[in-house]
Amino acid sequence: MIGLDQIKDIASSTPSKIVLLIIDGLGGLPHPQTGRTELESATTPNLDALAKDGICGLMDPVSPGITPGSAPGHLALFGYDPLRFMVGRGVLEALGIDFQFEERDVAARGNFCTVDGSGLVTDRRAGRISTQRCSQLCRMLDGLTIEGVTLFVLPVKEHRFVAVFRGEGLSSELSDSDPQQVGVEPKAVVPLSSGAAKAASIANEFVAKAKATLADQYPTNMVLLRGFSRYPQFPPMSEVYKLRAAAIAPYPMYRGLAKVVGMEVLPTGASIEEELATLAQNYDSYDYFFIHIKETDMAGEDGDFDRKARVIEEVDAALPRLIALDPDVIIVTGDHSTPALLKGHSWHPLPFLLRSRWCRPDGVEQFSERACSFGSMGRFPATDVMPLALANALKLKKFGA
Amino acid sequence: MIGLDQIKDIASSTPSKIVLLIIDGLGGLPHPQTGRTELESATTPNLDALAKDGICGLMDPVSPGITPGSAPGHLALFGYDPLRFMVGRGVLEALGIDFQFEERDVAARGNFCTVDGSGLVTDRRAGRISTQRCSQLCRMLDGLTIEGVTLFVLPVKEHRFVAVFRGEGLSSELSDSDPQQVGVEPKAVVPLSSGAAKAASIANEFVAKAKATLADQYPTNMVLLRGFSRYPQFPPMSEVYKLRAAAIAPYPMYRGLAKVVGMEVLPTGASIEEELATLAQNYDSYDYFFIHIKETDMAGEDGDFDRKARVIEEVDAALPRLIALDPDVIIVTGDHSTPALLKGHSWHPLPFLLRSRWCRPDGVEQFSERACSFGSMGRFPATDVMPLALANALKLKKFGA
Repeated sequence: MIGLDQIKDIASSTPSKIVLLIIDGLGGLPHPQTGRTELESATTPNLDALAKDGICGLMDPVSPGITPGSAPGHLALFGYDPLRFMVGRGVLEALGIDFQFEERDVAARGNFCTVDGSGLVTDRRAGRISTQRCSQLCRMLDGLTIEGVTLFVLPVKEHRFVAVFRGEGLSSELSDSDPQQVGVEPKAVVPLSSGAAKAASIANEFVAKAKATLADQYPTNMVLLRGFSRYPQFPPMSEVYKLRAAAIAPYPMYRGLAKVVGMEVLPTGASIEEELATLAQNYDSYDYFFIHIKETDMAGEDGDFDRKARVIEEVDAALPRLIALDPDVIIVTGDHSTPALLKGHSWHPLPFLLRSRWCRPDGVEQFSERACSFGSMGRFPATDVMPLALANALKLKKFGA
Repeated sequence: MIGLDQIKDIASSTPSKIVLLIIDGLGGLPHPQTGRTELESATTPNLDALAKDGICGLMDPVSPGITPGSAPGHLALFGYDPLRFMVGRGVLEALGIDFQFEERDVAARGNFCTVDGSGLVTDRRAGRISTQRCSQLCRMLDGLTIEGVTLFVLPVKEHRFVAVFRGEGLSSELSDSDPQQVGVEPKAVVPLSSGAAKAASIANEFVAKAKATLADQYPTNMVLLRGFSRYPQFPPMSEVYKLRAAAIAPYPMYRGLAKVVGMEVLPTGASIEEELATLAQNYDSYDYFFIHIKETDMAGEDGDFDRKARVIEEVDAALPRLIALDPDVIIVTGDHSTPALLKGHSWHPLPFLLRSRWCRPDGVEQFSERACSFGSMGRFPATDVMPLALANALKLKKFGA
């Protein structure tokens, strides 16, 4: 694939507009009774019309067979090779609660867990406590003092929390304390590079103090840490693509991912109508918009086939408002599949459509997994999307003499 | 993709023949009235018959969304990854005028431009002077003396010229003097590596002497240089593929590109009939032929939809002469799209056909952008073409044990 440096050389700023609509978890699997996926079960006249006027294909976010997390799924669509540009688990969890990172921070994902009298882990999730209980426990740990760093301990959901260590000279090259099994002791955090000794000692001090603080809080009497990471320093879209890029995303994690690649995050209401109102209000100020729809993924994760189809219909019904703005390039796809039948992210490729004045319509007349497999894009990696978007917006100069 | 070293290990010389017909700028966009591209508007019974007996697909010369220059477009078809094998702008311009390179030469693309009394550029193209006037000015500069090098200043077209510095120890790692904007002074040429100081000083001396020489030649009273480059040292096709490869190309730039990969360039007339006569005359002496048709691209650049379609029909009508030679492998495609609607190179993928006794026909019955999108090659990179050609000519041994 072409590298960001090579794209940077040929990208130029123009007034043309690109809108990327990501319907989270869009791809599905056929319902056993009907043989149709969630998307194929939904009535989507507006998406079908876009497909008919555009080019279509089946897209792999990371690589065929690979189930993407939210970060790789989105980064690929923003043109950042997800096999090279990594966002650590700790950072991703912190983005998910709108944590405001400083460059020097090191973040870890934490679990409240249960240990027995000998210190062996008996439940890695402490019985999946309530988020409210998690908040209480986090407040207890957030006040701990560790020499040389400012500590943040913040609740995420159920047993999950985020620990952020803010201080100078901290490396994130640290092993997990989470042993990923029961019946053993939590591991010591070990430095994975020569410069990481200080950070390891701080992490271990935190674990020791947390253990002491939680001693009488059975079953939440210990913590496990994993995914130590720092806020990534990726080349921003403004530099690489010469774009003024804006994100319209109601959920913190996606706002955070957008910030990681240098998008401006617009305040927005959470419904598709409110998101499209945000688009209309800000339409003149940017030339690239990422719009994120979360509810499809949530319905898929819940295994609710019909609700996922219904959400897709709601998105379709709202589209005329987007289409009326007449963006030079409209792209609709997802960041990964979430088939209701699997109740989770999956590796299945995603239906994809791109409509522009300068595309060569390929005869696909419906926006569905099956119809898109006959599109002229064929089966393709998501990292192709950004160059194609820029090309169709006439923002790329010729490559090579 | 498989590397040249790996191909080299399995390629063997055989008497079988491969003909690659490059119809420059072949791909197009649908005419707004008919919905058919240039190729789809042309009557092409011979190309359709080849498609029917062959395998088809949609090909990306560089990468989806990337508009190829002529060098990347051709190098990819010759099997040289265009993201790795680069030809500089200066060299390409010089190839375009049949300049005979020595290994030590450094070439730059030049513009005659206009500067005002303060030395600020007011017109980067000096009003697009005639090629005749360009020739006069080049003769004035060609005689300049620069200690330690032989200088060549040669006209290209309108305001464009080539400057070649021939001397020992010259690096081409030099910045452009062309500021790419008006209202500023031309830049000094700066060495981009430690070994390039001598070359930078020579380039700047040339610019200073050119300025003095042109002082009273308003509006052509200054020069701008860019794309300093040396003749590339690519592994030749004879070594990598064990081919005796010949180029039949009436235009200098394409002859030059063929030479860069070690093809023998055959003298030829410019019409398709004359090119095919050249093929017939030399058929026994080579086992790979690259035939280049330029007029399709020129019609596309002119925005002349109908003329482009007509040229395609002329190529089709001449094909029986090629087919009668019964090459083991016939490939027809382009080096990039040049839709008449865009009046220039574009990123759109190209229709591709390969016919051989050993291919597995895929049901495509017409040679067009749309029909090829249903071919068994799917959407694929141009660097796959050469291995496929060799395979279908039974010139490749098994890879790996």
